[in-house]
Amino acid sequence: MAGNQFGKLFTVTTFGESHGYGIGAIIDGCPAGLEINEEEIQVELDRRKPGQSKLVTQRKEGDIVSIQSGIFEGITTGTPISLFIKNEDQKSRDYDHIKNQYRPSHADYTYDAKYGFRDYRGGGRSSARETAARVAAGAIAKKILKAKGIEILAFVNSVKDISIPNGYLPSSREEIDASPTRCPHKETAEKIEQLILKTRKEGNSVGGIISTHITGVPAGLGEPVFDRLHADLGKAMLSINAVQGFEYGSGFDGCRKTGLENNDAFTEVSGTEAQTKTNNSGGIQGGISNGQPIYFKVGFKPTATLMIDQESVDQTGEQVVVKGKGRHDPCVLPRAVPIVEAMAALVLCDHFLRSRTNRMNQL
Amino acid sequence: MAGNQFGKLFTVTTFGESHGYGIGAIIDGCPAGLEINEEEIQVELDRRKPGQSKLVTQRKEGDIVSIQSGIFEGITTGTPISLFIKNEDQKSRDYDHIKNQYRPSHADYTYDAKYGFRDYRGGGRSSARETAARVAAGAIAKKILKAKGIEILAFVNSVKDISIPNGYLPSSREEIDASPTRCPHKETAEKIEQLILKTRKEGNSVGGIISTHITGVPAGLGEPVFDRLHADLGKAMLSINAVQGFEYGSGFDGCRKTGLENNDAFTEVSGTEAQTKTNNSGGIQGGISNGQPIYFKVGFKPTATLMIDQESVDQTGEQVVVKGKGRHDPCVLPRAVPIVEAMAALVLCDHFLRSRTNRMNQL
Amino acid sequence: MAGNQFGKLFTVTTFGESHGYGIGAIIDGCPAGLEINEEEIQVELDRRKPGQSKLVTQRKEGDIVSIQSGIFEGITTGTPISLFIKNEDQKSRDYDHIKNQYRPSHADYTYDAKYGFRDYRGGGRSSARETAARVAAGAIAKKILKAKGIEILAFVNSVKDISIPNGYLPSSREEIDASPTRCPHKETAEKIEQLILKTRKEGNSVGGIISTHITGVPAGLGEPVFDRLHADLGKAMLSINAVQGFEYGSGFDGCRKTGLENNDAFTEVSGTEAQTKTNNSGGIQGGISNGQPIYFKVGFKPTATLMIDQESVDQTGEQVVVKGKGRHDPCVLPRAVPIVEAMAALVLCDHFLRSRTNRMNQL
Amino acid sequence: MAGNQFGKLFTVTTFGESHGYGIGAIIDGCPAGLEINEEEIQVELDRRKPGQSKLVTQRKEGDIVSIQSGIFEGITTGTPISLFIKNEDQKSRDYDHIKNQYRPSHADYTYDAKYGFRDYRGGGRSSARETAARVAAGAIAKKILKAKGIEILAFVNSVKDISIPNGYLPSSREEIDASPTRCPHKETAEKIEQLILKTRKEGNSVGGIISTHITGVPAGLGEPVFDRLHADLGKAMLSINAVQGFEYGSGFDGCRKTGLENNDAFTEVSGTEAQTKTNNSGGIQGGISNGQPIYFKVGFKPTATLMIDQESVDQTGEQVVVKGKGRHDPCVLPRAVPIVEAMAALVLCDHFLRSRTNRMNQL
Repeated sequence: MAGNQFGKLFTVTTFGESHGYGIGAIIDGCPAGLEINEEEIQVELDRRKPGQSKLVTQRKEGDIVSIQSGIFEGITTGTPISLFIKNEDQKSRDYDHIKNQYRPSHADYTYDAKYGFRDYRGGGRSSARETAARVAAGAIAKKILKAKGIEILAFVNSVKDISIPNGYLPSSREEIDASPTRCPHKETAEKIEQLILKTRKEGNSVGGIISTHITGVPAGLGEPVFDRLHADLGKAMLSINAVQGFEYGSGFDGCRKTGLENNDAFTEVSGTEAQTKTNNSGGIQGGISNGQPIYFKVGFKPTATLMIDQESVDQTGEQVVVKGKGRHDPCVLPRAVPIVEAMAALVLCDHFLRSRTNRMNQL
Repeated sequence: MAGNQFGKLFTVTTFGESHGYGIGAIIDGCPAGLEINEEEIQVELDRRKPGQSKLVTQRKEGDIVSIQSGIFEGITTGTPISLFIKNEDQKSRDYDHIKNQYRPSHADYTYDAKYGFRDYRGGGRSSARETAARVAAGAIAKKILKAKGIEILAFVNSVKDISIPNGYLPSSREEIDASPTRCPHKETAEKIEQLILKTRKEGNSVGGIISTHITGVPAGLGEPVFDRLHADLGKAMLSINAVQGFEYGSGFDGCRKTGLENNDAFTEVSGTEAQTKTNNSGGIQGGISNGQPIYFKVGFKPTATLMIDQESVDQTGEQVVVKGKGRHDPCVLPRAVPIVEAMAALVLCDHFLRSRTNRMNQL
Repeated sequence: MAGNQFGKLFTVTTFGESHGYGIGAIIDGCPAGLEINEEEIQVELDRRKPGQSKLVTQRKEGDIVSIQSGIFEGITTGTPISLFIKNEDQKSRDYDHIKNQYRPSHADYTYDAKYGFRDYRGGGRSSARETAARVAAGAIAKKILKAKGIEILAFVNSVKDISIPNGYLPSSREEIDASPTRCPHKETAEKIEQLILKTRKEGNSVGGIISTHITGVPAGLGEPVFDRLHADLGKAMLSINAVQGFEYGSGFDGCRKTGLENNDAFTEVSGTEAQTKTNNSGGIQGGISNGQPIYFKVGFKPTATLMIDQESVDQTGEQVVVKGKGRHDPCVLPRAVPIVEAMAALVLCDHFLRSRTNRMNQL
Repeated sequence: MAGNQFGKLFTVTTFGESHGYGIGAIIDGCPAGLEINEEEIQVELDRRKPGQSKLVTQRKEGDIVSIQSGIFEGITTGTPISLFIKNEDQKSRDYDHIKNQYRPSHADYTYDAKYGFRDYRGGGRSSARETAARVAAGAIAKKILKAKGIEILAFVNSVKDISIPNGYLPSSREEIDASPTRCPHKETAEKIEQLILKTRKEGNSVGGIISTHITGVPAGLGEPVFDRLHADLGKAMLSINAVQGFEYGSGFDGCRKTGLENNDAFTEVSGTEAQTKTNNSGGIQGGISNGQPIYFKVGFKPTATLMIDQESVDQTGEQVVVKGKGRHDPCVLPRAVPIVEAMAALVLCDHFLRSRTNRMNQL
């Protein structure tokens, strides 16, 4: 129950560092009888992998996943599933210059403060490379959810001050992946693309917001009072590198409304789904899904790595200039879309399983 | 590990319903040797209790806490601490009219959908009354943190569209509690007070934002990759009734900046504390505290209970009018301030304990 | 996840000390829709309570349980169930003489060593009085299991060197409770009764063995590789005061056999039950139930409290004579029978719930 | 928190099947700053590996461990440690004949009943091959304990009806490993060796008992009331393949004594260690270590795999003869010695870390 595990029934433990031997994930608690193969997992990894377009980092990683246990003849056996991704691009000497330096807004100092020393190569464990393991595990969670009719669509809502029109909703993953920005609104996508290219040229970085829309969730998922569905979604998102904010339903905007404006009147109900006039609750009431679509936003700060020299200090407290060199991701949002989907899938899958034991007459 | 427990080493389990016999919390994992008594816990509860001013609900509850175990001769023994608060105001007949109705944006429908039926009296388990138990447990966490030099100050930042000036920071709890609004900025507090009184008269409700500022946190708290300090803070906050949003450091605003604008340059470092030119990271880098002040914002939606009739449906799907009657909290934010502090204290206390085993040379 | 909680899905946290305000248990994860009332729980507590016969301790405790939450109109709501038992017999001055003394084979010294000081009254948290809370929680687990056709019978197998005939099995709880010894074999029960009375007169104590026989367990319960069903049963039993040994199936005797002698040949199988020629596996193979009866033995040491003066030391290391005075339970086994049943029920109930999410086609 | 994880602060998750790609363990929660390398881990694996003598199974496995994460320049970094052992001997066709058959006293039937189907090759996940991953993880736990002065010695006490003299205690690991039987008493070892060779020739198998003796444990380890030190040791041992019984201290024999005979009088005490006249408590009182040596016994049944034809049924319920062919371990005890040590190390390491947060004045 240390900090590298997520989930209570569908539990995922990740391991590995940016420039070590590789990274991976162990899923414990996956139900038996699910058909899944490496190709299906690879599809998700390919959406996250570096080098997929000119907008993102050019690190050379195939990010090829291999299944090491838990699946027999293409079907999950109910035993732990080990997913492994070997690191290919291990040019760790690229990082010798930051061995003793503390890069601004990175985790270099805090890892040293916590553990006494650190694997400095590429950020070591604090690198966003770790999220590839989450995407691999999430691919399996997604397949379980799909079998239950639950679908998750995440997309880039805004980068810096460029946003899609309010309320715009993509109809499919294809629409999202049509642009390398993963922004489904064509005109906005074009502006974002220009902004990212300009930012890359400047050696700077930009942040933004990813929206997620989830359909097909039956009423009843979420375990109050602490494991409210949106609380677990929030934690999942905030555990992703560079995330600084989370809001669901009408979010911070809703906090500026009155109750009369924000309340969702019920119009129809069944045991698994409620219809409401509006959906300011974002599909979750009292921490439990109500059958309406779940939606939330996740804010990513501009990444800390720049191709611009920055002032800072080293381990001894000496003033240094951190050189802006090496590889660089001017905007992580396009690659973060599958990570957000993966983490949402882990939360929903875990809560779906947990909800199976809520009632005597359903045991 | 069901949903009513929070924390891994300093674990708190709450129980109880709004109109049942009472509510309470069990703390398991509190270190032995802490001096604490009921009066100290009561001080915190009095900040949350109903009826404390004309701005909040007039429910009659003394919210008197009693310690039932774990403390001997005024000192914690290391065994589970049971804190109990008897319900006094149990007029459950006030709720007969909603027995079969689904109030808009309440948890009535979702509890029915999940569990098959519900204790409808005053919202039962979904009532914010449960948070009194958190405040009681938080009082103990706060005392542990205080002994380690960590202090948490939460305050009302905005209600609806009225906000304190950007960057305004209270210097003490007294300044916060000086106004029944718990907004420390005098002029803003007065405007908020007028707004809440007007809202009460209209039978409506308003939401807003609570800010939290934490000082004295040593570098090294937080357990990546999933139990990042801010991820656990986010979950803690999102588990509070009516919370819809969480952001820390430069938050959603920071997502509209460039890396060069948002990065925090280091100026000095020690093993337990770093100095940075700016603190857009909100005292947390890579999910681990860096010794700078931690700060975050929590968005509360306007509460769902109104004194205005609203259309909805009942359990059979029939159209009904939910009567606006009974007690009513036009704005929960003043009473939510100690809840936010309590949850922050639970997170920090848990992570403080967890950080004690990070290094061989400190065992 | 501190040490006072048991179970993963059906979790029980106990609290309270021997001579404090009271003791209790919180169940988190009980499915909604179970009919249960205080009387049904009381029946189990009455089997454990002191003073029920001349064979056991004469401490005066009614052990009256009250339900404080989680049950509405006689039915579980799916929210935490709080069970509380007030301490009545709190003559703590009886224990003033051991305030600074370390009684032989008690937990006085170890609690001091661990926590720095202790609630010395009646053993405080280390007292077997805590097990009343387990029995109360176990009563609810038992009712769930009963609804699923699972029944647990524990009984006294032997006291000191007096044993029931090998293989003797009671047919009902009535047969077990017919004797105050809770040994179902009449002649053996009479011998045991005489031995206990003689032991009481001498101020000494005796240990023994409790056998448990569980029927109706479907195949498939148990979660390898660590949460094997018998491993969790073993932990549950070893967590009971005075337990020194656990064996299941053919146990230690089976270790002296050959594989050919010990193996259980299958004769018939279905999805929920296997028939085997013998049942040396005690109904569990590879850590998973096979549908055959589960049986195991639990060894209790003679209790440490004697009415005989014993040499020992005090907190300062000074030689002292610990006076043999106060109340005294010459043999805990008759009262331990419902405790063993309760802990077995907690394990099976937890594993029953966990087994509900093992297969895709059963979700 | 599914069933393949052990420990609360020092957590180990194992994965992998007998004839899959490999097996491994992830340690989450290992303190930073421990020097450890693959060679040190390999030493332990070599004590468990097949083919090490003529007494054990002749499966061909080098059992070469590789560290995949969490260790940088030979020192633990505080991040998850991944240990992987590739399977070399994957002749899975050897198992085609049992694809549909249920071998007596194996987990074939129960895995099918639980999960709907199974990886039948060599027992899949239920194979004792999984314990190699435990041994690898245990090697790291042992090194932590060694740094704290704690040493664990396990040895073969008896095989079938041949036992070492009562109370015999080896002085070193060398003495234990001197015989391929891992029985340190020379004459007994010789008899056991003859018995095992004879049993191998007959195609039969034999069980026995392993004793463990742990020194240097400070007073204060163990977390009542459920996570008593011996309860966690018991669970750890019972989670090992083929274990049917656990007893500590005076064990089942002590249950036949009187309190006066079994009680341990204190003679000297300090904060970390007590001296007692006898040690029937096995170094644990009230579930907490008292500084005296901890000792316990673990009973292994004779392994189920025989080289003798046995009657049984197949998946359809048809009578079949399970052929006695393939590889065969007539007695697992010699190879189980390092497994018992590893599991004991995991328990002690976890409890050592947990004990670091017991007291305010030690934080």
